[in-house]
Amino acid sequence: MVQFIDVRHMRDWIAATGPEARIAGIADYLESDYRRWNAFDKMPRVATHSPVGVIELMPTSDGELYTFKYVNGHPDNPARNLQTVTAFGVLADVDTGYPLMISEMTLLTALRTAANSALAARALARPGSSVMALIGTGSQAEFQSLAFRRMLGISSLRLWDTDPAALDKAVANLSPLGFNVYRAKDAADAVADADIVTTCTADKAYATILTDEMITPGMHLNAIGGDCPGKTELDPRILYRGSVFVEYEPQTRIEGEIQQVEADFSVTELWSVLAGVAHGRVADDEVTIFDSVGFAIEDFSALRYLYDTVAGTRFSEESDLIAEPHDPKDLFSLVSSPAAVRRA
Amino acid sequence: MVQFIDVRHMRDWIAATGPEARIAGIADYLESDYRRWNAFDKMPRVATHSPVGVIELMPTSDGELYTFKYVNGHPDNPARNLQTVTAFGVLADVDTGYPLMISEMTLLTALRTAANSALAARALARPGSSVMALIGTGSQAEFQSLAFRRMLGISSLRLWDTDPAALDKAVANLSPLGFNVYRAKDAADAVADADIVTTCTADKAYATILTDEMITPGMHLNAIGGDCPGKTELDPRILYRGSVFVEYEPQTRIEGEIQQVEADFSVTELWSVLAGVAHGRVADDEVTIFDSVGFAIEDFSALRYLYDTVAGTRFSEESDLIAEPHDPKDLFSLVSSPAAVRRA
Repeated sequence: MVQFIDVRHMRDWIAATGPEARIAGIADYLESDYRRWNAFDKMPRVATHSPVGVIELMPTSDGELYTFKYVNGHPDNPARNLQTVTAFGVLADVDTGYPLMISEMTLLTALRTAANSALAARALARPGSSVMALIGTGSQAEFQSLAFRRMLGISSLRLWDTDPAALDKAVANLSPLGFNVYRAKDAADAVADADIVTTCTADKAYATILTDEMITPGMHLNAIGGDCPGKTELDPRILYRGSVFVEYEPQTRIEGEIQQVEADFSVTELWSVLAGVAHGRVADDEVTIFDSVGFAIEDFSALRYLYDTVAGTRFSEESDLIAEPHDPKDLFSLVSSPAAVRRA
Repeated sequence: MVQFIDVRHMRDWIAATGPEARIAGIADYLESDYRRWNAFDKMPRVATHSPVGVIELMPTSDGELYTFKYVNGHPDNPARNLQTVTAFGVLADVDTGYPLMISEMTLLTALRTAANSALAARALARPGSSVMALIGTGSQAEFQSLAFRRMLGISSLRLWDTDPAALDKAVANLSPLGFNVYRAKDAADAVADADIVTTCTADKAYATILTDEMITPGMHLNAIGGDCPGKTELDPRILYRGSVFVEYEPQTRIEGEIQQVEADFSVTELWSVLAGVAHGRVADDEVTIFDSVGFAIEDFSALRYLYDTVAGTRFSEESDLIAEPHDPKDLFSLVSSPAAVRRA
């Protein structure tokens, strides 16, 4: 039987501990997986583009478990009351090839993206950072904020979005959670005095959310909205201001902010910082840039954590997805009904 | 809501008409999809290999619908009472990126593989063919037999498998279905006097199920068991005896029988025969070889047919797999429980 986690299960699973604890749990799994980076099969995601969006499959495996995520990106969806990004994922046993779990991943991706951002920032941002600017206050805003509080101690947020309704929503959601929330007048106002700047916008087009003059020494940029070919958020001059860190270089060359610069532009993979084989930040006045596009291993870690925590609980149900004839070579026994014989 | 078709639903859906009618329905959809081949996004499947097997994702899209199949291949599985191949699939809406249906595909793949084989044979085999040899009588045997009866009028079967239990099973299943069944003594005995030879074995290694001297003029070979790198069934000399037809040349070069011959070995894609832009069989004494590995468009057709026939019936249920906040930018509203607020 395959464990099936639908939206209701996922909401209950998150509510049982609160989202911050789930984010922290995913971050622990993710950090341990980053540290054994070379154990994983890695490939750029498999994307199917259309004029209005993209559907992607993101597989990976550590040789024992295999996971993939289905995820779409459709920037015009909110205008018709649909989400920009929805997702589901599967975890399978490499030894037998059988799927073990199917889960909703719209919510789980929100948690893992926040966990990944905060994990990178914990390694790269200036120690003592307390103020974060959030540019683009859509679905990720609250998850990012909770992750950065839990893992870095961020207490003050400076919010900006070109959509006033999205900005209202984020202010309304984040203020009661105990953050010191500032509603900025524009992107430059949001970024002023911030220790960390998170950009999370969704245009499927080259956009310039941050310009070079907004960036001050010592800032950490967490750029998560530029994540497919032709979709970027940063003025390319910013990339020359500091050190750029990526998840998986071959994928980020295609999808990240660095698609705007030369192919041999120097980057450092985050795993190597976490594993202690490469430098992260080397000075307080250095600008660090996490050019994040989302990678399959992040979903692997989130699904692995989920699987470990839902087994045998009320947060999952068993699903009859895999046909299992009594004799494995007699699949036909499952359909040899009287009707089938009668028609012969 | 996503339509969910589990094993029970699939069995009921097949039983409602019998497997032959479902195979014929899939073949109709498949033929119409082959004829508009250039409308599809095509790529070789995305395979993750391990020492004991492979897990694959097979995506495609016609610009309106998107499908993918998850499928494993683990030759040692039957020895531990598991199936060599299991599968499930997803159909999604390209315009929104939302999944519309998740279905078991172990059974559905058996139907579509049989439909595909018979569709190719109807175009390529000698008219009036009535005797089929089946080498490898595992899970596909009964489905292939029913498809070839329904679509070509095959009435006599000559069966062979190196596993006596698998041979016993096929004889026991096929005789009551009204076939004239001959239990062969070896592969050469099975092939003697056959109009069509279907090879469907599962070794993950170069194997020679058929040798050159077994092949007689006019035969049609339906070679479906050689379907991944290093896994072939035919003596390569056979490939020079006739005309070779494939599903999607770039994938078959990697996975099919033609991986044993030179990279510029001439092949014809099946769709071009069905669309009337290439020749199929040109003489009664020609040997035709369908070097079939299974391609994503076959799953697309099967899932499209399934979706069209299960909507609003008892053969499907609705599943809550996609998180849908009231405000698409307020995903957090789904998890902002009292617990989350309390912890702030």
